[in-house]
Formats: sequence, C-alpha cells, structure tokens
Amino acid sequence: MDEPQSTSPRSRRSGGREAKRAARSARAGTSLPYITRRIGVYEVLDEEGLALIERNADLILAEIGIEYRDDPEALAFWKAAGADVDGVRVRCPAGMCRQIIQASAPREFVQHARNPARSIPVGGKHTVFAPAYGSPFVRSLDEGRRYATLEDFRNFVKLAYLAPSLHHSGGTICEPVDLPVNKRHFDMVYSHMKYSDKPFMGSVTHPERAQDSVEMAKILFGNDYLDPATAKPKTVIINLINANSPMTYDATMLGAAKVYARANQATIITPFILAGAMSPVTVAGTAAQTLAEALSGMAFVQLVAPGAPVVLGSFASSISMQSGAPTFGTPEPALVLYAMAALARRLGVPFRSGGALCGAKIPDAQAAFESANTLVPTCLAGVNFVLHTAGWLEGGLAMGYEKFVMDVDQAGMMHTLLAGIDLSENGQAMDAIREVGPGKHFLGCAHTQANFETAFYRSPIADNNSYEQWEAEGSLDLAQRANASWKKQLAEYEAPPLDPAVDEALRDYIERRKASFPDSKF
Amino acid sequence: MDEPQSTSPRSRRSGGREAKRAARSARAGTSLPYITRRIGVYEVLDEEGLALIERNADLILAEIGIEYRDDPEALAFWKAAGADVDGVRVRCPAGMCRQIIQASAPREFVQHARNPARSIPVGGKHTVFAPAYGSPFVRSLDEGRRYATLEDFRNFVKLAYLAPSLHHSGGTICEPVDLPVNKRHFDMVYSHMKYSDKPFMGSVTHPERAQDSVEMAKILFGNDYLDPATAKPKTVIINLINANSPMTYDATMLGAAKVYARANQATIITPFILAGAMSPVTVAGTAAQTLAEALSGMAFVQLVAPGAPVVLGSFASSISMQSGAPTFGTPEPALVLYAMAALARRLGVPFRSGGALCGAKIPDAQAAFESANTLVPTCLAGVNFVLHTAGWLEGGLAMGYEKFVMDVDQAGMMHTLLAGIDLSENGQAMDAIREVGPGKHFLGCAHTQANFETAFYRSPIADNNSYEQWEAEGSLDLAQRANASWKKQLAEYEAPPLDPAVDEALRDYIERRKASFPDSKF
Repeated sequence: MDEPQSTSPRSRRSGGREAKRAARSARAGTSLPYITRRIGVYEVLDEEGLALIERNADLILAEIGIEYRDDPEALAFWKAAGADVDGVRVRCPAGMCRQIIQASAPREFVQHARNPARSIPVGGKHTVFAPAYGSPFVRSLDEGRRYATLEDFRNFVKLAYLAPSLHHSGGTICEPVDLPVNKRHFDMVYSHMKYSDKPFMGSVTHPERAQDSVEMAKILFGNDYLDPATAKPKTVIINLINANSPMTYDATMLGAAKVYARANQATIITPFILAGAMSPVTVAGTAAQTLAEALSGMAFVQLVAPGAPVVLGSFASSISMQSGAPTFGTPEPALVLYAMAALARRLGVPFRSGGALCGAKIPDAQAAFESANTLVPTCLAGVNFVLHTAGWLEGGLAMGYEKFVMDVDQAGMMHTLLAGIDLSENGQAMDAIREVGPGKHFLGCAHTQANFETAFYRSPIADNNSYEQWEAEGSLDLAQRANASWKKQLAEYEAPPLDPAVDEALRDYIERRKASFPDSKF
Repeated sequence: MDEPQSTSPRSRRSGGREAKRAARSARAGTSLPYITRRIGVYEVLDEEGLALIERNADLILAEIGIEYRDDPEALAFWKAAGADVDGVRVRCPAGMCRQIIQASAPREFVQHARNPARSIPVGGKHTVFAPAYGSPFVRSLDEGRRYATLEDFRNFVKLAYLAPSLHHSGGTICEPVDLPVNKRHFDMVYSHMKYSDKPFMGSVTHPERAQDSVEMAKILFGNDYLDPATAKPKTVIINLINANSPMTYDATMLGAAKVYARANQATIITPFILAGAMSPVTVAGTAAQTLAEALSGMAFVQLVAPGAPVVLGSFASSISMQSGAPTFGTPEPALVLYAMAALARRLGVPFRSGGALCGAKIPDAQAAFESANTLVPTCLAGVNFVLHTAGWLEGGLAMGYEKFVMDVDQAGMMHTLLAGIDLSENGQAMDAIREVGPGKHFLGCAHTQANFETAFYRSPIADNNSYEQWEAEGSLDLAQRANASWKKQLAEYEAPPLDPAVDEALRDYIERRKASFPDSKF
C-alpha cells in the first residue's frame, strides 16, 4: 500500500490496547507506527491571548516587513501577489499571508517512504519522531567529543532505522566533515536511501543540492515517484528551511525552498530563534515574531507552488544572558512551544517544533532534565513533526551516541502516554479487584497474568533491578548502559533490501555529479 | 499576618511580571511564594471517562468494601454512619462517602507556619512543594549510599529551608536510624521547628507519636495555636496517612488520623499503590481503586471530626514485571496522576501526588528523565501538595544530597512555567521588534537591556557556558556541580530566629517524654 496505515475509526476505549500492541512490537525490535494521539492537546493561551499574538504578527508583517535578500525572483512573486516591496523589504497587509496559505496549503499530507509501510502522515493528530539534525561534532563515552565523519552519519542512520520509536530517518544528522562541503549531500542523502527505508530529508544548503536530492529521490522511487491520480510528484522528501531571524530570508534557503516546492516536496519553514539574540527576551514577543516570519515564508512557498506541502516550524530557545550561549529545557521555550502549536492549529497547517533539546555537554542529569522538559511539552502541545527527537547535545553542536539511545527510549514512552487511558472492560480491571479483594496482592491474579507482559512501558536501558543486583552488575549509570546498547545495535544491524539496479543508478548519478565540479570548502 | 500572602485579583496579563519578580527573589536567595497557577490544568479523560472511574470506585466501596483492621472504634463510626459493617469489612452504598466528604471537608485550607509569611494555602489553584519523605538511606557523591542519621535529617531540613522553590519543610525527610524507632519522632519534629520556619509534617507511626507532634506544635505556636475566631486549633501540621492498599486501613494509620483530625490538623489520605502488586496492572483500574480507598479514608476522617482538613492523596506507580522492583517516571503513572487530579477537583478537595520520583539509584540521566517525567505532569495536572519534590532516589529508599539540589532547581523552573505567558505591553515587546528590525540582533536594544536580568529562569547549577569554558572548569557533570552547591549552602546556613523560651519548652517536653518510656526498635 502507498498510504500510511489508515487510522480506522476506533472507539476511544480501545486506545490502551493499541498502545499495548505497540509496546509489544517495540520489544520485538520492530518499529512502532507513527503516533495518532488519543489524548487532548495542552494549551496555555486562551482565544484572547492567541488572537493578540496573531494581531502582533500581522503588525510585524505590515509595518516592519520581512526581508527577502539576494533573490529578485522572490521579490517578483511578492510584487505580483500585491505586497508592498520596498528594496528587499516585503510588507503585507494584515491577513494577506494567512489568506494565501489557507487558500492552497494542505492541512495534512503524507510523506512517502520507499517502504510504503513507513510512510507517514504529517499534521492533524499525528506525531512523527525524527533524529537530531546539524551537529558538526559527535560524542561517545569511548571517544569523547570529536568532529563527525561519514561513518558517524551512517551509524546514526542505522540506529534511527533500528529505533522502534523513530518514524523518520532525519536529514543532516551530523555533518560528515571528512567530505567536501559541496559534495557531502550526495553521501548523506544516499545513506538515508541505502541504510534505511524510513522517510528522510533533503539538502538545503544550495539550490543545486536541493535539486540533487530531488533527482536522487526520482531514481529511488522510480515509477512510484509520480502520483498516477494527480500526475504530480508524490511528496517523498521533507526539508528544513530556516529563516534568518529576525525577519530575514536569504537566497540559499529561498533557492532550496523553491526547488522543493516546485517538485511538490515538503518544506518546514522554521524561524530559528534564540530569544534575546534573534527575538525579544519575552515569550509573547518571540511567539509573535516567529509567527510573522513563518507566515511570510509559508505564503512565499504557496506563491511559488500553490498546494506544495508546508509545515509551520518553530525553533525557539533562549540565551544565557551571562555567557551568550543558548539554553534549553527551561520554562520559557516550553511556553513558546505551547503557544505556537495552538497558533499552527488555528492557521490549519502541520506544526514542527521541540525534540529532546539540551544545552548539556554530556549525557548527564542536566541533559536528561532539559530534554524531558522539552519532549514532554512537545508531545502534550501536539507537535506533528518532531525534529531533534534523539541524539541532541550541547545546543546541537554534538550528536551523542549514548544520548541517542536514551532519547529513543523516551520517545518510546511518549507512544504510551499519547495513547491515553484504556477504558475497555479489560482496562477497568474490575474483575481483578473483585478477585483479589482487601489486603491481598495482584501479582498472581488472572487479570495480571493475562496482561503483565504488555501492561507497562518497558525501558530497554533503565535499571529497575534491586540495589544489590545493580551493584553486582557494576553500578552502571544510564549512559554506560546506553553505550552497550548502541554498540550491540550497530553490530547486529542488517540493511533493508534495496533493488540493486536502483542502488547502481543512484551511485552512477552521484559519481557523475561529483566528477562534474571541483571539491570546495563552502 | 497570619494568612498566606493573599492572591489579590490581578489581570492575567501581569502573570509574567509576577514570575519575573519571583525569579528575582530566587536569585537573591530568598524564598519564592507558593505557586498560584496562571495556566490551565491538563486533563486526559473527558466527563464520560471520569464518571466511569467514579462509578467503579462506588462499586468497589459498595460491593467489595474496605477493611478497617484492629480498630473497633473506627467500625463503630462507620456503623453509626449507616455503613454495612461485616467483621472488619466496611461497605458503603454508592455516593455515601462522597456525600460525607462534601458535607464537611474544606475545599481549601491554610497550613500555618510559625513564620506567618511562610503559611501556605492547600487546594484550589495553589501548588506547594515539599521535600521527599521516608528514606532509610542517604546518598552523596562523597560517601555513596549509607544509612541516614539525625545529622542528615537536620541537613535536609536546612537545605529545604534554604531552597527558594520549596514552600514546606516536609516530614520524615529521611529516617534517622541512629535513634530509637520509638523516640526519633521527637528529634525529627524538633528539627523542623528549630532549623526551619516553613510549615512541616507530624509523626504518623503511632497514635502517641501523633499526639506528641500535636503537643509540640502547641508549644511552638503558643497563643497562636488557637484561632480566636473559631476557638478551634489552627491547622499547623499536615500528615501523611497511607492506606494499606488494596482496600485496607490499619490501626496505626487510623489511630494517627484520629489524633490529628480531632486536633483539626490536616491529613493526606493516600493509597500507596504500585500497580501490579497493590492494584491491577491498568491505569483505569488503579485510578478506580485509588479513588475508592481515598474516598473511604477521607469520609472516615470527616466522621471522626467533621470539617477537619483532608487531602486526597495518590501515590501510584508500577512495578517491573521482571524484577518486582517499583518503576517511576514511566507513562502509566503520569496518566493515573492526570486522572486522579481531575477526580479530586470533581470531589472538591485538595490533591496530593507526584514529585520528582525515580527508580534510579544515582543522580544520573535516568534519575533526571524519570523525575522530570513525574514533575511536569505533577505541575500540569494541578497537584496542590507535592510531596517528594526534592531528593528522591531509588524508589524512595535513598535521599540524595545532589539529587535534592537538582530537584530544587527543577521546582524553581515550575514556578516560571505555571506563571504562564506575560501578555502585558512589555511582554508583547513590539517596541523591541520595531527598534531592531530585520537582520539585526536584540542583545543591545532598550527592551532587552531593561528586561534581561529577569527575562529567563536562571538555573544555579546548569552549565550554560561555552564548551571551552566548561572544559576549562573541569568538564563537570550536573551531579558534581550540585555537590559543591549543597556543601556551600550548609556551610553558609543560618537558622531562623526561635524564641529561646519556646525552644527550652520544646526541649523540656522532649526530655520528659523520652525519659518516660524505654527505647525500642519498633
């Protein structure tokens, strides 16, 4: 089948049982399906508060405007749409961007994977987890911190493929700095295609690299690339387009966005904001600016290619006003996240934010506190596409091998949380309570026997042994257990099958393209 | 003043500014006021789901019943109230317990502290943080794990006194096992009175020890003990009464509950449940049983002393079906917590649950993930009295010095989170956005300059320095920084003033009582 597993109408009461099935698959080493949440979203602003942020975003778009730099074609699009274009500054009257987006952007779309069972819906009640993105360094207990290589990149693609709770292979999981800057996208995109069959992200660092990503996707998907119903390309790549906050888009990002939009590939328009540096030091100010920038970027994509899938992205954290370094897992970014998720729902587009963000340098308690303080809001707010779910350390400067394993475990828990409470007869367990009665224990009762294997989320790395057992096993901490886990996983990894002809065609394309221009450091 | 700082009617828009003020006090080393939440609660069940749990709780109370063991007086109370008493089994028709509770239990009450500025409201939109409770062991980086002593107990009372984000001194923070079991309550209660001026908890391990706690409180509060308006004692102690789940109360807890209720002191009626052992392995079953047990216990307190303050408590986690050890921070207990908080609100009583629970043995990433996965739901669910906010390790077997410091930091963040989004003009920060404009940075703008000191929650122990700076400072992890923090705090601790006459009277009482019966190990 070409569509993600359809969400058949199920009674609310079967939620828990679904979660159990999911948990069972997790233990069998297979992948969990993407999340379809069965509990509500959490909101921190009421209608009045949300409307205020929207009005302020409109004011920013109308009075201050957004700069579209070094891209005359972009300005022409805006002029044609009726915006006020003054130099590179684009001002839009209140409501204009919203109207453009709502006229053509899909509320929800499917990103197809080469293995159709891995295709994912983006939007609505769905949540999809992808690995972290963009680190120049990697860290492990064995080697400490060092520059990332292509081997690291492949390792993380493999680990993401093996991770039951990740539904996506991600993009630039880490920068393979051992390869020339202008050619490493070939190896990254190829690694996603070869070592995983989960959906993936394309290159955005140059319009040509975006085009290469599209061409490689055409080879990978072959006859499946075009949707026979619409004769348009299926959406098979999702791509991260960052605004240069405050209120600026540059030619690189605009160029990549145009390539992808014209090919009907998805873009995540994300103001990347460290409040205090790229936005005001307040939550409400940061939210209004984020919304303004995202509205402008998404509207631009719809002007270029009406109907192309777009996602409202928000990456907002704060900086330490002492060191200037970014901070994560603090309360302010959580508040921005809750507000932005609600604003995306009101706009009617999928939402990307959150993850397991932290400023900690190592996978210690700081990393865990900060990550959990980001991932829980991510899930309760109703984020649809969660980049940076696993591996993030040091404000994104390093991908952590142990951190990756820890985060995958946490993402697994979120599947159970978002499945909500099973209110079926079995979930109510009244027979168990009747059978056991006062003062006895439930360990041996029929209901416990029937349910214990799937009753609770089981972490593969948390230690829940007795103190004595834990000591006897070496008094290991979570990072040490995670270290053993990723090594075992890589040792046992087996690649998903890939048609050798497709593989050869991909390698031919890469070889040909790589030979056609010189290496570069930029 | 005798009342906690009143919550004057403030516009929603001042929320953020309040939080800033709070954050400023935190940095000045003074205490934050108890939390009055400005964002909504999160719920996971709808009306139908909650009503189902209530019906099941009623069925348990009517069909199965609750055992009141070794306490004929308790059975007499139930008989007089019209319950069906069969041996020690008490069955109540549907709605009876609810009716008894709603007829007399206060929705919200004040626990008075000897320093009136530290008095706290329990219930409503308020959240109060107290330290962990009940560990026989302590753990520090220096000494590892060992049995707790009175010195440890005093240390934690001092650390809780110094912790800006803790509003309560707690109770049996750790067991001073160097003292005789039947006399250590004197030293514990005295330590709370002497080394802190925050509100505290009394002894519940024997009715006589409860009475000692009341007598000592009378000495401490002197003429302030009786409320002149009602001629009844003020509520100055709050006490943890656990059910012997499943569906059993024992004479020790009932005896202590009666002493406190008759003295108008508060009781937290808490089914202590590890699902799979003391309740069914499901969330809905555990919630129904918890509600049934708590309803029965709270109704009993109201029969003994109508109007005595009671709190609905829920301590629900699960056990590892492999090792039998308790597990914490997993999704199932979070779901129980959200459901129970909603059920307490429907009943109209204050709610106690959550904290910073974990199964981890050491303050590593596991401890932090599990703690955050408990504390965030605790705060979003709207828990009123949070026991176990700081120090908890190893399923409650150990109080951790470093863990305590970490948890206090997390509790500090929750103050900011629950203050919500500042929507004032300053919070909207439109002037800053206008001043800076596209492509510039906000670091130097007037709004940032005016707000940066209070803009973001600042952790005293998280590392937010550059990587190079962090390395130069020794590549410390969070536990190591927390280690330095608690030592510095204890070194700088100064006791709050206590009237020497009161102090002497307390010591006289203790000396006299200790001399009046032999030491015992039970």
